[in-house]
Amino acid sequence: MNAIPASLLQQTAQLSGSVTRPIPGSRKIHVEGSRPDIRVPMREIALTRTPTVFGGEDNPPVTVYDTSGPYTDPEARIDLAAGLPPLRAQWIAERGDTEELPALTSEFGRAREHDPKLDAVRFPGRRLPRRAKAGANVTQMHYARRGIITPEMEFVAIRENQRLEAVRDAALRAQHPGQGFGASIPEVITPEFVRDEIARGRAILPCNINHPESEPMIIGRNFLTKINANIGNSAVSSGIAEEVEKMVWAIRWGGDTVMDLSTGKHIHETREWIIRNSPVPIGTVPIYQALEKVDGRAEELTWEIFRDTLIEQAEQGVDYFTIHAGVLLRYVPLTARRVTGIVSRGGSIMAKWCLAHHRENFLYTHFEEICEIMKAYDVAFSLGDGLRPGCIADANDAAQFGELETLGELTKIAWKHDVQTMIEGPGHVPMQLIKENMDKQLRECGEAPFYTLGPLTTDIAPGYDHITSAIGAAMIGWYGTAMLCYVTPKEHLGLPNRQDVRDGIMAYKIAAHAADLAKGHPGAQVRDNALSKARFEFRWEDQFHLGLDPEKAREFHDETLPKEAHKLAHFCSMCGPHFCSMKITQDVRDYAAEHGLDERAALEAGMAGKAAEFREQGAEVYRAG
Amino acid sequence: MNAIPASLLQQTAQLSGSVTRPIPGSRKIHVEGSRPDIRVPMREIALTRTPTVFGGEDNPPVTVYDTSGPYTDPEARIDLAAGLPPLRAQWIAERGDTEELPALTSEFGRAREHDPKLDAVRFPGRRLPRRAKAGANVTQMHYARRGIITPEMEFVAIRENQRLEAVRDAALRAQHPGQGFGASIPEVITPEFVRDEIARGRAILPCNINHPESEPMIIGRNFLTKINANIGNSAVSSGIAEEVEKMVWAIRWGGDTVMDLSTGKHIHETREWIIRNSPVPIGTVPIYQALEKVDGRAEELTWEIFRDTLIEQAEQGVDYFTIHAGVLLRYVPLTARRVTGIVSRGGSIMAKWCLAHHRENFLYTHFEEICEIMKAYDVAFSLGDGLRPGCIADANDAAQFGELETLGELTKIAWKHDVQTMIEGPGHVPMQLIKENMDKQLRECGEAPFYTLGPLTTDIAPGYDHITSAIGAAMIGWYGTAMLCYVTPKEHLGLPNRQDVRDGIMAYKIAAHAADLAKGHPGAQVRDNALSKARFEFRWEDQFHLGLDPEKAREFHDETLPKEAHKLAHFCSMCGPHFCSMKITQDVRDYAAEHGLDERAALEAGMAGKAAEFREQGAEVYRAG
Repeated sequence: MNAIPASLLQQTAQLSGSVTRPIPGSRKIHVEGSRPDIRVPMREIALTRTPTVFGGEDNPPVTVYDTSGPYTDPEARIDLAAGLPPLRAQWIAERGDTEELPALTSEFGRAREHDPKLDAVRFPGRRLPRRAKAGANVTQMHYARRGIITPEMEFVAIRENQRLEAVRDAALRAQHPGQGFGASIPEVITPEFVRDEIARGRAILPCNINHPESEPMIIGRNFLTKINANIGNSAVSSGIAEEVEKMVWAIRWGGDTVMDLSTGKHIHETREWIIRNSPVPIGTVPIYQALEKVDGRAEELTWEIFRDTLIEQAEQGVDYFTIHAGVLLRYVPLTARRVTGIVSRGGSIMAKWCLAHHRENFLYTHFEEICEIMKAYDVAFSLGDGLRPGCIADANDAAQFGELETLGELTKIAWKHDVQTMIEGPGHVPMQLIKENMDKQLRECGEAPFYTLGPLTTDIAPGYDHITSAIGAAMIGWYGTAMLCYVTPKEHLGLPNRQDVRDGIMAYKIAAHAADLAKGHPGAQVRDNALSKARFEFRWEDQFHLGLDPEKAREFHDETLPKEAHKLAHFCSMCGPHFCSMKITQDVRDYAAEHGLDERAALEAGMAGKAAEFREQGAEVYRAG
Repeated sequence: MNAIPASLLQQTAQLSGSVTRPIPGSRKIHVEGSRPDIRVPMREIALTRTPTVFGGEDNPPVTVYDTSGPYTDPEARIDLAAGLPPLRAQWIAERGDTEELPALTSEFGRAREHDPKLDAVRFPGRRLPRRAKAGANVTQMHYARRGIITPEMEFVAIRENQRLEAVRDAALRAQHPGQGFGASIPEVITPEFVRDEIARGRAILPCNINHPESEPMIIGRNFLTKINANIGNSAVSSGIAEEVEKMVWAIRWGGDTVMDLSTGKHIHETREWIIRNSPVPIGTVPIYQALEKVDGRAEELTWEIFRDTLIEQAEQGVDYFTIHAGVLLRYVPLTARRVTGIVSRGGSIMAKWCLAHHRENFLYTHFEEICEIMKAYDVAFSLGDGLRPGCIADANDAAQFGELETLGELTKIAWKHDVQTMIEGPGHVPMQLIKENMDKQLRECGEAPFYTLGPLTTDIAPGYDHITSAIGAAMIGWYGTAMLCYVTPKEHLGLPNRQDVRDGIMAYKIAAHAADLAKGHPGAQVRDNALSKARFEFRWEDQFHLGLDPEKAREFHDETLPKEAHKLAHFCSMCGPHFCSMKITQDVRDYAAEHGLDERAALEAGMAGKAAEFREQGAEVYRAG
C-alpha cells in the first residue's frame, strides 16, 4: 500500500493543550513485566510531608490506574497523523497465527481507500490489516482456554494491582469488608487468574489484532469496575478532529474504553483516526454504519452489507462490536404498549427490519458466521440490549427479559467459538428493580461481564442524567456489573460537548469506585484513605492531587480562598480561621494521647468505669425529668 | 415594640429577577382545605396535545409539590423588608394556648434589638414573640397525641397527595411495586394519618409558633422524601442580602427546609431576615452562635449561654435545632484513632468542652430543660450526629454507633415531653455499610425520622461530592431516611455559590425522588410517566417543563438545536433527522396495531406459534454451527 499524500487533516490535526497537559501533582510511570516490552502505565501521585503539628511523617506516593495513554506524558511526542506506537505488534506477530493481508478485505473499505474525494480527511500511512491464518482462532479466550498466558494478560494483571504491594502502611491499607454478592476477587491479581477468568468467560480483554496501539485492559466482575465513554458525531454536528480530541479528553479523565457512535458522513475515516490514536479499546455499533450504506432504510439492510461492515471495522481495529442479535421477531410486539417503545437505535433498526420482512433478525440467524469473523480478528461481542427500557415505566418487562434470555443463549454460542463476550444492560430502572437485572444477567449469561448504561433511576431530571444514572450505575456495579457506560448531562437533550464528557466521566468514575469499595476490591480504599488523611491534615495540594479531578478541586477551592498561602492554611473557608472542627479534633487527639485515652485504653480499661459513671449522671437527670 | 426606622438593608434588599421569575410552563395553584385559610400551594404543569401522528390526545396537566413559596407566583407582591404574610397566625392564635410576650426573653436578643450599631442591618417591623402559656405544650406532637388534627396537619395531608386523585389515566398512574423495607405508606394521605404518624413520633411537622409564615410540611419515612439545603455565611464570606437570596434560590429548586449555618457576624440579624421571608422551615445549629458569644473558646461555653441562645432563636421562629447531645465524654476518645477525627463542627465543639472540663456534655445533662424550651415554642429536635464519620475509613465505628444509641435514648426522653424529634445521620459511608446505619437508626430511635447528610460513598472526588453523596442519599432514602441533607459540589473545598446550591439541590431532588419510586410511594411515578410519554412523542417543551430544572433542560437542548422550530421536530440531535429510534418505534407500533400484534395478542394467541417457528429457525442455524 503506497503512502497517501499528506491530507489537509494531517497538516492541521493537533490536540489542544488543554487535553494533553500533565495531570497536576502526578507523573506517568511504567511498571515493567516479565519482558521489557511489557511496560504498564500508571500514574504516581506524589504527596507532601504531614505538617509537624499533625505528626510530621512522610506520606508515600499513591499509584493509581491510568487510562490516559501517552497524552499526559510530557516525555511523549504526539503526532496524530502518525498514530500511537503499535506496542502490541510484536506480541501479535510472535504468536504466528495471523498474517498480514495484501489489501483490505471489505469492499466498502477498499472503495473508501481509493476515493480521491476522501484524501483530505483520510488517515495517512495506513498499515495493512492482519487476520487469523486459515483455521486459526486468535482470541484471548482461545489462548486462555489452551492455558496460554499472553503478554496482554500479564499486562492486565500488573495494571489491575496498581502496585498495591508497595503500600505497606497498615492504616493506608485498612479497608471495610466488602459485600461481593458472589464475586471472587483475590488479594493479588496474577496473570494466571486473568487467564482463568478469561477462559471461563467471566472477563474479556478486548484487543483486536488490528489495534496494536491499545494498552491491554480487562472487563470482568472480579476486576476493577470499568467505565465506557461514548463519542461520535451525528448528521447534525461534530467533525473528525473534534472526535479525536474528544477521545483523548475522555481517556484523560478515566474512560477505560471509548465507543465511537458516529452516524454522520466520514464515519469510516473518523473511526480510523480514532483507533490509530487510541490507547484504549474502541467499541462500535456496526449496524449504524450499515444503515448509512442503505441510506437509512432499515428494511434494505442485508446480511451481506452487514458482514462487509463487520470486516471493514474489524480490519480497522475495532475491539468490540455491539451486536443486537437478541432482538427477535417475537419480542418486538411485546414493546408495542410500552411508554417509550424501543429506544435503542440498533434495537429499533433490527425491529423494523424484522417486521418489514416478517423474518427473524439476521444477526441472530447469522450469529455463528459473525463468530467466525470475531475470532479471526479477536473482536469481542458486546451483545446489545436492543429492547432495553427507555423509561422507568418500561423497566424489567417481558421484552427486555425475553431478549436477555436470548443473549444468554447467544453467549453460549459465542463461547463455543472462544469469542470473548459481554452483555449490554439497561437503561432506565428504578432502584428496587436493579438487582433483579443483575441477578438474571448472571444466571442467564453464565457470569459473562455485564455492561450497563446507567441505569437511570428516574426520568424526571433531563439535564442531570449523569446523576440519575450514576446512582443506578454505582448500585449495579456493586451487584456485579463489570463496565458502566457513562451518561452525560446532555442525555436526551443534545450532543455532549467536552464539558459534558468530563462531567459524565466523573460521575461514572465515582460510581465505579463506589462499587469497588462496596465489593471490597483489595486496595480500593487506599486512595480514599490517603485523601482523607490529607484532608484532615490540611494538605490541600495533596487533597486536590488525589482527587479524580485535581483541576476542578483546585478551581473550587480558589474561588473562596484564592491566595496561594491558603493552600498551607490550617483551616478552610467553610468555618474560617477561628472555628475549625479539624483543629478541635487535633486537640481531642492530643488530649486523648496525653491522658492515655486512646481507643484501646477506652475500651479495655478506664472508660468502662467512666462510662458507668456518666450513665449514672445521665440516669439521675432523667429521674428528675 | 416601636417600629424601627427603615434600615439601609430595608431600602436595598431586593431579590434579583433570576430567583423569582416564574418556573417555565407551570403555574402556582392553591388547593383549598376544609377552611378557606388552608390554601395549599402546588405547581401545575400544563401539557400540550399529543401530535396527531402519535394519537392526537390531550394530556392532562401534572401537579407537583411546590416548595418555592410566593416567590414564583407572579401574583404575589414580594417585600423582603415586610416579610411574608403570617399564614398560620390565626391557627396558632385560635388554639388559645400561647401568649404574645411583652418583649424578647433572651438577654442577647434584647441587646441586639437595642444596639443602634445594628440599625442598618436589622429586620424592620419585628413582631412580638409568642410562647406557650405557663404549663402548656404547643407542639404538633402534643396535639396529635391528644387526637387533635390541626390545620397544619390537614395542610400537610393535602400537600402530600399532590392532587393524585385528579390523575385518572391508568397508564399515567401505572407504577412498579415498591420495596419499602417496612415503610407503611397508604394510598391516600389523610389528615388522620398525618396525626397518627406525628403522634407515634414517626414523622415531624416542624413549625415554630414564631414562624407563622411557614407553609406546613412533614418529614417522615411514610411521606415524600424531603431534602434540606444549607446556607449561611462564615467569617470569610457572604452577607445578609446574599443569604436571603440564597434561601429563595434554594426553595425555588426544591429545598424542603433550609438550615442557616451562619457563623459570622450579624448571625442574629441574618437569621431574622431569613425566617421572616421563608415559607419553609428553618433549622439552625445553636451551638455555632453560642460559640461566637464566647469568642470561639469552646471550653467557655456554659449551659446558661446556650439556654439563652435557644430562647433567642426560638423566639425568632427557628423550626428545628440541631442539638449535639449525644456526644458523650466516654465516646470522645473513641475518635482519637480515626483518620479524620471529629468532623462535625458541633460535635467537635462539644467534644472539646467535655475534655476541657472532664465533665459530661451539658446538652446531655440539661436535655430535659431543653425539652421544656422546645415545647414552649414547638421547636423540633434534630439530634445531631456530632461523631459522624468524616471519611470512608471511619464509617460505622464505635464512636458513631455509640452516639446513635444515645440519640435513641434521648429520642425517648423528647417523646416523653411530646417534643418532635428527628435524628441526624452520616456522613461518609461506603455503599455496603449504608443499610446497617438505617436499620440501627430505626431500631434505636423507634422510627423517629432519620435525616442524613448524604452519605458520601467515596472520598476521592472533591469537586463532585454532590454526586458521591447523591448515590448514598438515594439508597438511604430508599431504606427509610425521611430527609436528605444536600451536599454541594463545593463540599470540603469552599462555600457554595448560587450555582453550587442549585447543583446540590438537583442532585438531592433526584435522590429523593429515586427513593420515593423505589419505596413505591403512591403516585411517585406519575411525573416520570408523563415526562417519558412527552419524550417519546417529541413534545420537547413538555419534557423541559416536567423536568426538575426546566431552564437547564432547555438550555442544553438549545446548545445543539437552537432553533425554535426544532422544539416541534420529530427527531433529536442525538441521531439526526434521518435516523431516529423513536420514529422507528412508532412504525413498530403502527405495524403491530395493523397486524393485531399487540402485547396481548402476542402473548395469548398468534405469537406462541410464531415464536416456536422462529425458535426452530434458530435451532437450525445452531445445528449447523
